[in-house]
Amino acid sequence: MTTTKRPVGRPATIADPRQTIMAHAARMFATQGYENTSLSQIASATGISKAALYHYFPAKQEIYDAIVVEMLQSMKDQVWARVEQQSSFKDRLKAFMTAHADFFQDNYQEFVTLLHGISGTSRGRSAEELAARARYENALRSLVQSGTEAGDIRQQDTAVVARAILAPLNAMPRWFNPKGTRRAAEFAEEFFDLLFEGLRQR
Amino acid sequence: MTTTKRPVGRPATIADPRQTIMAHAARMFATQGYENTSLSQIASATGISKAALYHYFPAKQEIYDAIVVEMLQSMKDQVWARVEQQSSFKDRLKAFMTAHADFFQDNYQEFVTLLHGISGTSRGRSAEELAARARYENALRSLVQSGTEAGDIRQQDTAVVARAILAPLNAMPRWFNPKGTRRAAEFAEEFFDLLFEGLRQR
Repeated sequence: MTTTKRPVGRPATIADPRQTIMAHAARMFATQGYENTSLSQIASATGISKAALYHYFPAKQEIYDAIVVEMLQSMKDQVWARVEQQSSFKDRLKAFMTAHADFFQDNYQEFVTLLHGISGTSRGRSAEELAARARYENALRSLVQSGTEAGDIRQQDTAVVARAILAPLNAMPRWFNPKGTRRAAEFAEEFFDLLFEGLRQR
Repeated sequence: MTTTKRPVGRPATIADPRQTIMAHAARMFATQGYENTSLSQIASATGISKAALYHYFPAKQEIYDAIVVEMLQSMKDQVWARVEQQSSFKDRLKAFMTAHADFFQDNYQEFVTLLHGISGTSRGRSAEELAARARYENALRSLVQSGTEAGDIRQQDTAVVARAILAPLNAMPRWFNPKGTRRAAEFAEEFFDLLFEGLRQR
């Protein structure tokens, strides 16, 4: 490892520069908005030259896309780590819903602005983002399928069930108050109970 | 009523000019996008001068807001006309969900671009739009409340139940294919069944 002065344009010598750039950019996109954040500002916050930044990300949109894909992958990893601690289908589904809500709340600012694009770009979602979202939903469909096969849930269209599970979680950014007294996971548990047991009075 | 040539800036003599402007603008926003539609184009499509257009709507954003509020009100009227044809809570809730899906499908292009803002503006929702959305959701909460009071549904947080009902309907623009073989209302009926009866195998 060299400590001599780098020529402009050469990759930065900071540890894991790609991750460092993404972390700074994510914070800036979330707090000041995508449109109001320039590549120069990101380079400056990261402590590298603009030319070095270009080495990793030739365009601002690519940083944004990389952040979103990484966030979806982290969410999947964290949620699934919780699901796999449980054995029954019922407990696994409850773990899925509450872990999803915890991830949402723990990463509130970035989740709302980046995943929901509230201050995002007008461009559509990248192919990589769509693939990451599909992986997330497919994992849920597999869980639902396992519950159906085990006879824990009624025979239903797996895709429809997965959508009914995800929809109230995905809608939370519209109304959840992160400064309120109730945790997102408490609402997720109510959604779980509603879906699993049904509205009907028996 | 006069048929003499109007001075520029005087209101147009077309029938219900406000509604006519909104209808043309809604079609243009939905097909070519809000940003790509100018006041001049809207005036031209409506067959009035730009000055006459200004008489009704001083800014493009006001046309957009008026269209969205009117669409929400129409949806509420049409959905509630169907709900009120039913008597039991179960049938009323099913009517709510399927009528909502029918409105979505029958007004697909405008619903997706205007209500979901996919090609909308970067500005937040207007106070009038938020109020119209609140009226829609409050009507649903009242329906849920009546079902709880009648003992048809388990005691639950009414707001949480209303969100669980609306979320899968509101998420339909993300995945529903209007050219596919299944009607939106068929999916809505599956969501209804899931929510009402629950996932659990009994």
